[in-house]
Amino acid sequence: MAEAAPFERVAIIGLGLIGSSIARAARAGGVAGSIAAYDRDEAVAVRVAALGIADVVAASAADAVEGADLVIVCTPVGVCGAVAAEIGPKLKVGAVLSDVGSVKGAVVRDMGRHVPAHAAFIPAHPIAGTEDSGPDAGFAELFQDRWAILTPLSPADEADVERLRRFWEGMGANVDTMTVEHHDLVFAIVSHVPHLIAYNIVGTAADLEDVTQSEVIKYSASGFRDFTRIAASDPTMWRDIFLNNRDAVLEILGRFTEDLQALQRAIRWGEGDALFNLFSRTRAIRRSIVEQGQDTAAPDFGRRAAPPPPAGER
Amino acid sequence: MAEAAPFERVAIIGLGLIGSSIARAARAGGVAGSIAAYDRDEAVAVRVAALGIADVVAASAADAVEGADLVIVCTPVGVCGAVAAEIGPKLKVGAVLSDVGSVKGAVVRDMGRHVPAHAAFIPAHPIAGTEDSGPDAGFAELFQDRWAILTPLSPADEADVERLRRFWEGMGANVDTMTVEHHDLVFAIVSHVPHLIAYNIVGTAADLEDVTQSEVIKYSASGFRDFTRIAASDPTMWRDIFLNNRDAVLEILGRFTEDLQALQRAIRWGEGDALFNLFSRTRAIRRSIVEQGQDTAAPDFGRRAAPPPPAGER
Repeated sequence: MAEAAPFERVAIIGLGLIGSSIARAARAGGVAGSIAAYDRDEAVAVRVAALGIADVVAASAADAVEGADLVIVCTPVGVCGAVAAEIGPKLKVGAVLSDVGSVKGAVVRDMGRHVPAHAAFIPAHPIAGTEDSGPDAGFAELFQDRWAILTPLSPADEADVERLRRFWEGMGANVDTMTVEHHDLVFAIVSHVPHLIAYNIVGTAADLEDVTQSEVIKYSASGFRDFTRIAASDPTMWRDIFLNNRDAVLEILGRFTEDLQALQRAIRWGEGDALFNLFSRTRAIRRSIVEQGQDTAAPDFGRRAAPPPPAGER
Repeated sequence: MAEAAPFERVAIIGLGLIGSSIARAARAGGVAGSIAAYDRDEAVAVRVAALGIADVVAASAADAVEGADLVIVCTPVGVCGAVAAEIGPKLKVGAVLSDVGSVKGAVVRDMGRHVPAHAAFIPAHPIAGTEDSGPDAGFAELFQDRWAILTPLSPADEADVERLRRFWEGMGANVDTMTVEHHDLVFAIVSHVPHLIAYNIVGTAADLEDVTQSEVIKYSASGFRDFTRIAASDPTMWRDIFLNNRDAVLEILGRFTEDLQALQRAIRWGEGDALFNLFSRTRAIRRSIVEQGQDTAAPDFGRRAAPPPPAGER
């Protein structure tokens, strides 16, 4: 890039799928002068060194953030408070502290109080990921054309928000900003409750007496397998998400259950029109998601070799 | 193929995704001497003729089945009874009548009584499909390495079951047999309830007041979009499935709701271990599905260009 990197020294705490992808993408995008990495898991730290995706693999979080212009905490949400308590005092004057947590209210609650007045805390959430975990699962293109949401706390330092925006845009992301509260409600419906439902149906299937697990696996192509992908996501990360976005998740879950009971009743009483109307309505949403480039239009997610039919003919 | 086609004349009633794929696959696999097609939708019939995937496009279902050795009804489950009433009297001596319905109990109830003693009725259900509909959405490889389930009615004609098995194997499918009752329970859990849940969550999202539909679409990559794919399936087909597999669907739905309420309670009371244990358990099932070739191992369903990480490193 012609312009200077938005941040000279970047520190990444936690090198899982997201943290290791940021290390790779920041270097590829030229948005970090140098990258220091720290992971409390010795095996991960060793692996990160072997992969060579950071300039320095620090021995402690405190060492990693020393002199850093941007510090991004990429640990599970449940421990980000403890991490903030450790690194807060070490943040240099003018440093920007951010995170990648899928919930923002709890992160602000847990990290916020450890941020010194001379540093700026700007929570963030990149909307990207796969069902895989760990430093080997990451890749530089993970954020390409995906959304990265910043939830600045008022009074936010506009200049710092702008630098962080440039940082994420440099990694290929489209940046959006919203309030912490709105973020948590939006993600309860687009992410958290869908994951909970997926985990739940897979669990229900595993517990049936009259249908064997091997049958469930064998015939999963008929719909079930789509749920198993997100039900294979990192258990620790997701436990923390549900414990930390409790209110919004319970609110959306209540609506979901209410709607499901209405469907159940329609099935019991043979109300075909009620079913047909819902099933038609949901099609339009899929179309918009594909049109807006948020998913592939290939039938069956393009799992098959066969070419998708010409859209005009459907 | 060296051996003769298991059926000389094959008639296909209903040329949607499945019917049109059977026409293509049967010809490609050399398991049909000639193919007669009929669809009550004039536009579909015209399109099938233009695609040239059948040897004859008949003017009526009765004409199509005349002299056919195998007749496969590929209409929505809700109308297969009416179709059987029309074609039953025209079935030739020794003809095999089959279908592709996703529910079997109701199909046997509705079609069975119209089958003359001189023909053999062998219900079938190919476990294959995409979210697309219509004759253009079909392709010859749809059944490749997918399961096709036959639910012979006792006393079943072994020789006819064997011919039908060869027919499906010739189109690339792996054939399995089970009872009608077991089939309907298995598919309530691996297909019907998952679809119902997907339709339901998409509907719940569409009805929120505080989250706009454009936000749901914009951020759908975080989990929601996986549900929208199956929630875009053919509304008529799915209405009929729920109306015709009511008991099994309500039974599985009851268990799903029970399990979901336990999860809801765990979230409300902050029982992290209960969540973590379920989330870990469901991972193993995903692994088996991928190992048994029922889904791709590529992260994110291989939606991205980026290569999947070496499995050993995860």
